[in-house]
Amino acid sequence: MQTVALDDIQALVFDVFGTVVDWHGGILRDGRRLSAARGLDVDWHAFALAWREGYAPALERVRRGSIAWANLDRLHRGILDELLPRFGLEGLPESDLKHLNRVWHRLDPWPDTRPGLLRLKAGRVIATLSNGHVALLVNMARHADLPWDCILSAELFGTYKPELLVYRRAAALLGLAPEQVMMVAAHPSDLAAAREAGLRIAYVPRPAERGEPQAFTPAPSADFDLTASDFEDLARQFGL
Amino acid sequence: MQTVALDDIQALVFDVFGTVVDWHGGILRDGRRLSAARGLDVDWHAFALAWREGYAPALERVRRGSIAWANLDRLHRGILDELLPRFGLEGLPESDLKHLNRVWHRLDPWPDTRPGLLRLKAGRVIATLSNGHVALLVNMARHADLPWDCILSAELFGTYKPELLVYRRAAALLGLAPEQVMMVAAHPSDLAAAREAGLRIAYVPRPAERGEPQAFTPAPSADFDLTASDFEDLARQFGL
Repeated sequence: MQTVALDDIQALVFDVFGTVVDWHGGILRDGRRLSAARGLDVDWHAFALAWREGYAPALERVRRGSIAWANLDRLHRGILDELLPRFGLEGLPESDLKHLNRVWHRLDPWPDTRPGLLRLKAGRVIATLSNGHVALLVNMARHADLPWDCILSAELFGTYKPELLVYRRAAALLGLAPEQVMMVAAHPSDLAAAREAGLRIAYVPRPAERGEPQAFTPAPSADFDLTASDFEDLARQFGL
Repeated sequence: MQTVALDDIQALVFDVFGTVVDWHGGILRDGRRLSAARGLDVDWHAFALAWREGYAPALERVRRGSIAWANLDRLHRGILDELLPRFGLEGLPESDLKHLNRVWHRLDPWPDTRPGLLRLKAGRVIATLSNGHVALLVNMARHADLPWDCILSAELFGTYKPELLVYRRAAALLGLAPEQVMMVAAHPSDLAAAREAGLRIAYVPRPAERGEPQAFTPAPSADFDLTASDFEDLARQFGL
């Protein structure tokens, strides 16, 4: 049941990691290539989860101001460096580590991402609203052929989601009131903050985000203005 | 003769008004429609030039801090309001004025713009770098089907070109050194500032920008890293 008039929504802004692209699958893909090239035996599934686990605390250090602004390349690299001994990767040359750290620029979309975005773009402005920095999001869009109208990033505002100003200033940059913008994400915490900032919110669960769909329980749809099974379903609900 | 290795250029950033789109033609088009609808007799060519003439002084007031930040919709409207009596437009209803003021969101590209950008995008990052605000540039890209990788605007930096920080911070957002970025513009003054900021510069003269190609004298090509007759020629020079 829709709790919001979708005709009033002028723009959709998208969380990216997990919602638009498959970070777990991308790290597995590049990790296994690295294993093959260097003769390594690494549990890349565990590695992917551990790398991602370091993400939220790193963002929190920036948000609180306990460290100066740092983009995701720097935060990801800091987490990666700490994981190297645990996964037996200390011996890798710097060029391999640099390449691996940029896997976040080369993530692949979910199968519905691109067709869904193209349909949505026909009737609404579509933009990223990610903690990924602008350069990362540009590289990802070129890699995955994502048809964004606009790249919006927390980097533009000098802090990270879920700080409310990120959502509010994104709407303002699009020339819209918060309630004319719908945040789309696979993560209830991101959506709760977007709602607190005045945006409408759409939940698109991504059961395979951590590679283990069987362990996934979707959040109750009553918590959101809209729930969609994927981006094509989202477009359908918008009549697009 | 090229003075710069084009292989080192990772991104091209484009001035928009006059360089990518035809503001003079767009104002004529919408002005004539307004004349027909309201039975007006207006010299829209003179009107377009007068509107654009108010632009540089308005930007300068913002750059100097003599007025607070205002986006182009507000600056254009201020200039428009001052022009109304001179062109016999005082009687127009507010809805017409609002619509006319947003003509800058609906400008058409030059014929070579879109094919040239598509070719360039195949090998380089392409982004706007305009004094137009983000919402205006998004609307324009949707209107004209412009395939930008990224919308960069002076608005993101709180001042206007030719302040050097606009060019430098645009390069930084793309994750690049200034010398890895080439500014493309039809206006030598924009390019001179971009060069001072460390960017490479490409001149694409637009003789019809003011509707009178016969009165146009191109700037000497020795002042620029590259001169191209249009965006398709620019793509050709990049081997794209």
